[in-house]
Amino acid sequence: MSIPHKPAATEAQLHELIANRWSPRSFDVSHKLSDDQIHSLLEAARWSPSSMNAQPWRFLVGLRGDSNFAALVSSLKENNLEWAPNASAIVLVAATGEKVSNIEIFDAGLAVSALITQAQSMGLHTHQMGGFSKSKVKEVFSLPENVEPIVLIGVGKISEPSKLSQALLERELAPRSRKPLTELMLKGLN
Amino acid sequence: MSIPHKPAATEAQLHELIANRWSPRSFDVSHKLSDDQIHSLLEAARWSPSSMNAQPWRFLVGLRGDSNFAALVSSLKENNLEWAPNASAIVLVAATGEKVSNIEIFDAGLAVSALITQAQSMGLHTHQMGGFSKSKVKEVFSLPENVEPIVLIGVGKISEPSKLSQALLERELAPRSRKPLTELMLKGLN
Repeated sequence: MSIPHKPAATEAQLHELIANRWSPRSFDVSHKLSDDQIHSLLEAARWSPSSMNAQPWRFLVGLRGDSNFAALVSSLKENNLEWAPNASAIVLVAATGEKVSNIEIFDAGLAVSALITQAQSMGLHTHQMGGFSKSKVKEVFSLPENVEPIVLIGVGKISEPSKLSQALLERELAPRSRKPLTELMLKGLN
Repeated sequence: MSIPHKPAATEAQLHELIANRWSPRSFDVSHKLSDDQIHSLLEAARWSPSSMNAQPWRFLVGLRGDSNFAALVSSLKENNLEWAPNASAIVLVAATGEKVSNIEIFDAGLAVSALITQAQSMGLHTHQMGGFSKSKVKEVFSLPENVEPIVLIGVGKISEPSKLSQALLERELAPRSRKPLTELMLKGLN
């Protein structure tokens, strides 16, 4: 079974790093990330813009086989447990500030997207997960009061999907879909 | 005066679209975006990932000279009024959902970052602004109750900065700075 290629279905000119990004569930369980690769991913996030340059993002990296990875996997909700343990790394992204408000959460989104684009440029794929226990993550890593877990990012090498369960295989092969742009546009004055 | 080049100060390998992104204040007031360019920017955002594929982002585009642009400029706080009117476009990004929570705000951040990366790939620069009146934007565009303005993005062609006021010129020429990565890493178990 070949690796799915699922470019964005658009007539617009899109940069290949944007057009070809998607979130697979089939990762190569033998693939490992090098220290340099992890450094590049984190640096891409670090150099993101943020309101008042506050840089409210915080990171923690688990590499398949280490204690951080195991702890992050143990926080996952069931729907992610089938595939996420095969990722080469799981990155916890948290937001912090005197108060974690919309601004910090939004800026964390900017940083995560930069990390993802950097991963794409390195031949890697990513899959974000909101389905995890934030309270468990707070507890196991003894996170400070003002550090709010936001998302986990599975990072790894995509692999051919034949070992996925039927349910996940169908999602892996399904075309990507989005609302039409017209539904996303607010009504202007012009 | 030449256009500043301000790559991220890192030893890590970063893709050029990530490394060279920064938020200038000097935009070419004669530059116009084509319809195709605007379409590419919005499509990059549209194909972002989102939790449950909910796509909670909404957009409104003002082009320098049109009514949307004028209305968005009129919502700006004073610190953005010197430079933002020279951008070719100002894009309003809002989040929506049954309830606009952290998830929708975070996903809006992902979409904005994709738009920015796409802009970079087209030789454009962007500058995000949180400094605007959200209530004014809601009112002037009669936004529905559950549509929350998040950010304005100035998009345009960077220009040499000699016309900026002294205060802005200093910021335009200053090196970009970030906290060291060590300060951004949460304490793990390993």
